Amino acid sequence: MKKAGILGGGQLGRMLLQAAANYPVETFVMENDPGCPAAHLCHHFTKGDITSFDDVYNFGKGLDVLTIEIESVNEDALEKLEAEGVKIFPSPAALRIIKNKILQKEYYKAQQIPTSEFVVTQDAADLKQHEAFLPAVHKLAKGGYDGRGVQIIKTAADMAEGFDAPSVLEKMVHIKKEVAVMIAVSSKGETAIYPPVDMVFDPKLNLLSYQISPADLPEKIFWRVEAIALKVVKELKSPGIFAVELFVDIDDNVWVNETAPRVHNSGHHTIEANYSSQFDMLWRVLLDYPLGNTDPIMPAAIVNLLGAEGFSGPAHYEGLSDVLAMDNVFVHLYGKKETKPGRKMGHITIISNEKQELLHKANQIKHGLFVKTI
Amino acid sequence: MKKAGILGGGQLGRMLLQAAANYPVETFVMENDPGCPAAHLCHHFTKGDITSFDDVYNFGKGLDVLTIEIESVNEDALEKLEAEGVKIFPSPAALRIIKNKILQKEYYKAQQIPTSEFVVTQDAADLKQHEAFLPAVHKLAKGGYDGRGVQIIKTAADMAEGFDAPSVLEKMVHIKKEVAVMIAVSSKGETAIYPPVDMVFDPKLNLLSYQISPADLPEKIFWRVEAIALKVVKELKSPGIFAVELFVDIDDNVWVNETAPRVHNSGHHTIEANYSSQFDMLWRVLLDYPLGNTDPIMPAAIVNLLGAEGFSGPAHYEGLSDVLAMDNVFVHLYGKKETKPGRKMGHITIISNEKQELLHKANQIKHGLFVKTI
Repeated sequence: MKKAGILGGGQLGRMLLQAAANYPVETFVMENDPGCPAAHLCHHFTKGDITSFDDVYNFGKGLDVLTIEIESVNEDALEKLEAEGVKIFPSPAALRIIKNKILQKEYYKAQQIPTSEFVVTQDAADLKQHEAFLPAVHKLAKGGYDGRGVQIIKTAADMAEGFDAPSVLEKMVHIKKEVAVMIAVSSKGETAIYPPVDMVFDPKLNLLSYQISPADLPEKIFWRVEAIALKVVKELKSPGIFAVELFVDIDDNVWVNETAPRVHNSGHHTIEANYSSQFDMLWRVLLDYPLGNTDPIMPAAIVNLLGAEGFSGPAHYEGLSDVLAMDNVFVHLYGKKETKPGRKMGHITIISNEKQELLHKANQIKHGLFVKTI
Repeated sequence: MKKAGILGGGQLGRMLLQAAANYPVETFVMENDPGCPAAHLCHHFTKGDITSFDDVYNFGKGLDVLTIEIESVNEDALEKLEAEGVKIFPSPAALRIIKNKILQKEYYKAQQIPTSEFVVTQDAADLKQHEAFLPAVHKLAKGGYDGRGVQIIKTAADMAEGFDAPSVLEKMVHIKKEVAVMIAVSSKGETAIYPPVDMVFDPKLNLLSYQISPADLPEKIFWRVEAIALKVVKELKSPGIFAVELFVDIDDNVWVNETAPRVHNSGHHTIEANYSSQFDMLWRVLLDYPLGNTDPIMPAAIVNLLGAEGFSGPAHYEGLSDVLAMDNVFVHLYGKKETKPGRKMGHITIISNEKQELLHKANQIKHGLFVKTI
């Protein structure tokens, strides 16, 4: 059996390990918290710091293949491991580009991939020089995650909210909709693309509120989205699975927003709604099996289950029984003991051939299921 | 989080634990072999003997709920745990009836559930008295599993193959087809029934060869099968999930063959082919959530992947890449390090609206995928 490691032990690792149990593979997870969602689902759990060179290197030595469920890992250690023959998917080179928002934007520009105009800012003083560039979005180059490290700067008055560290300032796009595309790349360079999905964000938390699959796009834009997403991934020249997030603006232009080199929240519906889920697909890449079938079995919606405002402590799921009683609804709770406002505690997938039913049930769930405290 | 235990750590436990990760539950497994398929997927693994009173009692103490993935467990310990307030699903009383083939047959008779005629035999000498009863099937009262403990006795000459221990001798039924029905029972006594499935057996190993869902039955017989299976389960008065195996004879009579008080090989297609899988469903029962939806998403077939004749040792899956490249096919390998002839090493599920495609792919897989040795 091959030995496969995952850096990070959150819900993405958890769902990866649920899928791993369909394959003959020995699994390893490293994460600081032994009570994390994925810790108990692997063969070998290592308590360690995924940002530490020594921890990552020692963890990866002797493995056949290593992947990530979060970008903030020590890529120097990954490069050394790669040089020593451990397969690292995504490749450290691709990860280095993606995990730094400045390099990521410069990569899009260099590859002539449509992305919103941007300037690089080194600190707060630097930011102040770009008043003419507003309205814009300020993004920390390093360490942003799940809505953190992103600040909307509409006017000069908002500039105090900007980051006093290397960042990109991106010109605001007049967004009509946001879509995401998952793409898998095998070690032979073959690709498999999932149909684009529509993403609807919570404006306050900047977290995915719900998602509909497939995206409701005119055929021409659907194809443009797929072609651009494919170009983003192909030029990275790395095996793995990638989520490309894009904007469609009010003039139907398509812009790449950002890319994640891993399984992604916008692809959770694939567990039930596609023949090969994003998690199944990544195992196929890691274990060098043929890529899976990305065709949908049925249209789907995802509702993210976030910790309710005003509640911090041991999680209690209010309204869970009503949701579990729904006919075509799949509940995924991540087993996190503690909730806090906005924390990702689970997701719920709805599948149906009727879009109205998807929307209706997504709304019922959004307004009927809450994570509070015991 | 509730604490839930599973006695036994084979593939059924493995798939139960894959489903458990959708719920907030702390999982415990006991099994003698720490390398068993389920050991690494629970929060707490205990090495122990599931037939030992002390081991089962000590394992179950302090748990909220306990279930089984194999019948051969110590039911005295389960009775004591039940008396002390641990929920045991299936109930020890139901388990006691089912795990002894003599009691099981007498239960059907007492409940006027149609089942083939039978006599009880205490030993080999006793068996010899029943020549007039042949052709028949001799089944060990205790300890039979996966085709072991079952012997066909057509004529007096075969009687030497019979069991020299308490057994039932069942009159041979002129079988047209074998079907199975999964039924869940909640702690409130509500039931949820999955559509019957057709089972095709390997005549040599007496193991499921493939299975088609839903069963191809005339409406009247379909209903009769469901009604009889429901009666079997209802009279057991136990929460849990049950597999009822039945014969349809050449005159379209329906006979109960036997019942298993647990998740079952004949229900593995429900992972992909039904809204709530048998594994998801059992968690709903164990954790006292509403029962799930048993409706099919699509018709399905299962092919069991058995260790090939003539190969014992570290498992190698010959033909796996071809099967993984099939569009609507789901591979489940159980991660057993060692294969031996007839050992259940995995199963493959095919889903399609076209029955011809199910049969065609099931045959392709049966003749293209083999478990041999490295």
